[in-house]
Amino acid sequence: MTDTTAAPALALTDLHASLTDPVLDAMNFLNEVVARFPEALSFAPGRPSEGTFETDDLARHLRSYTDHLEQARGWSKDQVRTHLFQYGRTNGIIHELIARTLANDEQIHVAPESIVVTTGCQEAMLLTLRALFAVPEDTLLVSSPCYVGITGAARLLDIATHPVPEGADGPDPEAFAAAARRLRQEGRRPRALYVVPDFANPSGTSMTLAARERLLRVAAEEDLLILEDDPYGFFVRAGSARPTLKSMDHERRVLHLGSFAKTALPGARVGYVVADQEVVGPGGRRSLLADELSKIKSMTTVNTSAIGQAVIGGLLVECDCRLREANAEAIAYYGTNLATLLGELERHFPEERRRELGLSWNEPTGGFFLVVDVPFVADTKALEDSARTFGVLWTPMSDFYTEGGGEHRLRLSCSALTPDQIVEGVRRLARFIESRAAEATERP
Amino acid sequence: MTDTTAAPALALTDLHASLTDPVLDAMNFLNEVVARFPEALSFAPGRPSEGTFETDDLARHLRSYTDHLEQARGWSKDQVRTHLFQYGRTNGIIHELIARTLANDEQIHVAPESIVVTTGCQEAMLLTLRALFAVPEDTLLVSSPCYVGITGAARLLDIATHPVPEGADGPDPEAFAAAARRLRQEGRRPRALYVVPDFANPSGTSMTLAARERLLRVAAEEDLLILEDDPYGFFVRAGSARPTLKSMDHERRVLHLGSFAKTALPGARVGYVVADQEVVGPGGRRSLLADELSKIKSMTTVNTSAIGQAVIGGLLVECDCRLREANAEAIAYYGTNLATLLGELERHFPEERRRELGLSWNEPTGGFFLVVDVPFVADTKALEDSARTFGVLWTPMSDFYTEGGGEHRLRLSCSALTPDQIVEGVRRLARFIESRAAEATERP
Repeated sequence: MTDTTAAPALALTDLHASLTDPVLDAMNFLNEVVARFPEALSFAPGRPSEGTFETDDLARHLRSYTDHLEQARGWSKDQVRTHLFQYGRTNGIIHELIARTLANDEQIHVAPESIVVTTGCQEAMLLTLRALFAVPEDTLLVSSPCYVGITGAARLLDIATHPVPEGADGPDPEAFAAAARRLRQEGRRPRALYVVPDFANPSGTSMTLAARERLLRVAAEEDLLILEDDPYGFFVRAGSARPTLKSMDHERRVLHLGSFAKTALPGARVGYVVADQEVVGPGGRRSLLADELSKIKSMTTVNTSAIGQAVIGGLLVECDCRLREANAEAIAYYGTNLATLLGELERHFPEERRRELGLSWNEPTGGFFLVVDVPFVADTKALEDSARTFGVLWTPMSDFYTEGGGEHRLRLSCSALTPDQIVEGVRRLARFIESRAAEATERP
Repeated sequence: MTDTTAAPALALTDLHASLTDPVLDAMNFLNEVVARFPEALSFAPGRPSEGTFETDDLARHLRSYTDHLEQARGWSKDQVRTHLFQYGRTNGIIHELIARTLANDEQIHVAPESIVVTTGCQEAMLLTLRALFAVPEDTLLVSSPCYVGITGAARLLDIATHPVPEGADGPDPEAFAAAARRLRQEGRRPRALYVVPDFANPSGTSMTLAARERLLRVAAEEDLLILEDDPYGFFVRAGSARPTLKSMDHERRVLHLGSFAKTALPGARVGYVVADQEVVGPGGRRSLLADELSKIKSMTTVNTSAIGQAVIGGLLVECDCRLREANAEAIAYYGTNLATLLGELERHFPEERRRELGLSWNEPTGGFFLVVDVPFVADTKALEDSARTFGVLWTPMSDFYTEGGGEHRLRLSCSALTPDQIVEGVRRLARFIESRAAEATERP
């Protein structure tokens, strides 16, 4: 391939419309912004801490998994070799270990066959959306502000989304009910709603137990499925963990989306979805929704990497499928980080100063994120200035609103920094905020 | 989650239409049929041979990759740890090694930045189709019979496909040109064409050098992009390897889809697409198509497993990015298998007997597959009988035709059997074919 003739360029406007949608840029931005400002302290990406991970752990996890197959399950070495080398079961090979882990950690009791192991939780979202959304009227309700992974996947598939504003306690069941009724009146079909009940990305909010109960009732009343995404539920800073929606789901209204990126390691790219709904086909033939998702998965990635699954499988075997206990150190670490972040914000901006500036933030009881309301436009231009001049990165909240909003808000993530870095990061952030506030005052 | 109330079942007809499309069932069938008849000899799936692979090789490949990073590239242990543990570059981390391999093995010389590393070649197809197909009129031309991975991915995205019958020498450039013109007259927009130039799945056919040159000219004349899928090109039985379309592509008309499933191992789930086309956006801003695909990838799988990539990366390092040479044993093995299959067919069905039965097959010069034309309907019912009564599996060719056809054809794959198994498998297949032929004769 040599460049002897001029190559005809493709027009961006001739490509799929998702490519000019800001939400797709936002995700790339989140993933790659750190590389652009290597010297800056970053409150931007929701990356997990590397903790005590060492590269050699990968070989150990692989060995734990193959030992498990040979010793606990009596497989031959040949069977194990084929299992890791070959194409395999479309819905995954560690579904039984995941089912045991969900039972131990979340009191979610489901058949392993209802679990689809995916290439990260992102593929689980893609499969789920593709299966459930059939006609242009089908609409996904999303708690807003909303994780860009779900709205971006919907955009790829030309699926309509409808934002439902969250409150201080996260997703609002009554607002979902009202939105569903209104959409139906407009001739649309509200099909499912997406929520992160614990320590949501981006807002850090959580649903009360009462709100969870109410949301399940709303789903039944309005005939909606619930897509529950719960990557941060383990990471409680204050108070105690609340039950997942799936553990309270008596009507199989909930599809539970899971990730090992935060509780194990992102590099394995293993997630899953629990899809234990029944599907009735022609002639009354019944299948699990998981089986239907399998057909779609065979056209997205065929299999989730057997090697990635084996690494996660080994890690689960090592902790006897009690991943919450295995995350005890990480839970303490993130709790300390979030407490440090809150404390430092308070130290730099005591109540009086906050009032003068028109500054505030929320105080999540866990997870990786909090939101700061600032007295200036927190857009990518402000972010570039923050990174270049003050050496600190954060995420503009406007990325998480599909229909505008959040222009004066920024997200801080404290998961990938040490407490010392948080102290220094907030010092830099405070200088940036004070500088912006001074600029605003100076202007006529 | 307990089953205290009746769960409302979902109607299959309320789910996305792809779930009732035969093509999606076909892929699942290919992947899972072996498990249903464990005693049968299987000419069905296009699985690679496990060759000399041992489970412990995985740890060695990982080590080769991390040694490469530390020694050849001077990375610190901390950098390597982060590289394997964390979220990373959306378009992959082994793109430079893949670029070197393509240069060595295929004389494809492209910038590493134009390569998107994907979760198997299937994700490469999905990303490519999603980017290129924007409006309902956009149509994908496919050489027919066609690999179900591409038609299935198109179905997921509601992209129209148009089959173009292949000839004895595979994809037919003139037929593509005529189809493109006809579609345009009908108000549709032929956007790209999909071909497997070497030893196609399912038919085993290959394009001559002249046909490759002509196809590139047709693409220029008709303003089509070419999606070139080349998983089997290494595996030449007779004659010599032909250049890929990408290596002959002076106008960047070709997107080259690649897989390591056949040349390394499927369990890693690593593939790629070379997308070195230029894209012009608003204000004349230029990007690589690979950069646009990255935006889509961030909404399908976020990253390809770093661990899967590291295994393939280590394997490439170990062979100094000369994968064709590293496949010398595999090339010989598959060549012997295909020759054995052809020889045994000839032995059981010499010319006279073939003529009596109305039986024939093609004689591919390489790859995993050949096609047998049989004097009966080779459908899934016949297959079940073949498996249960005669202990031999194959694939109905009708799965590979999107608009009917192939009812009297079956595909034989010889990649996952030993020569001894092929001998026994053809013996069983011959009994099955003779039995069917006798049945047909007995009927009034």
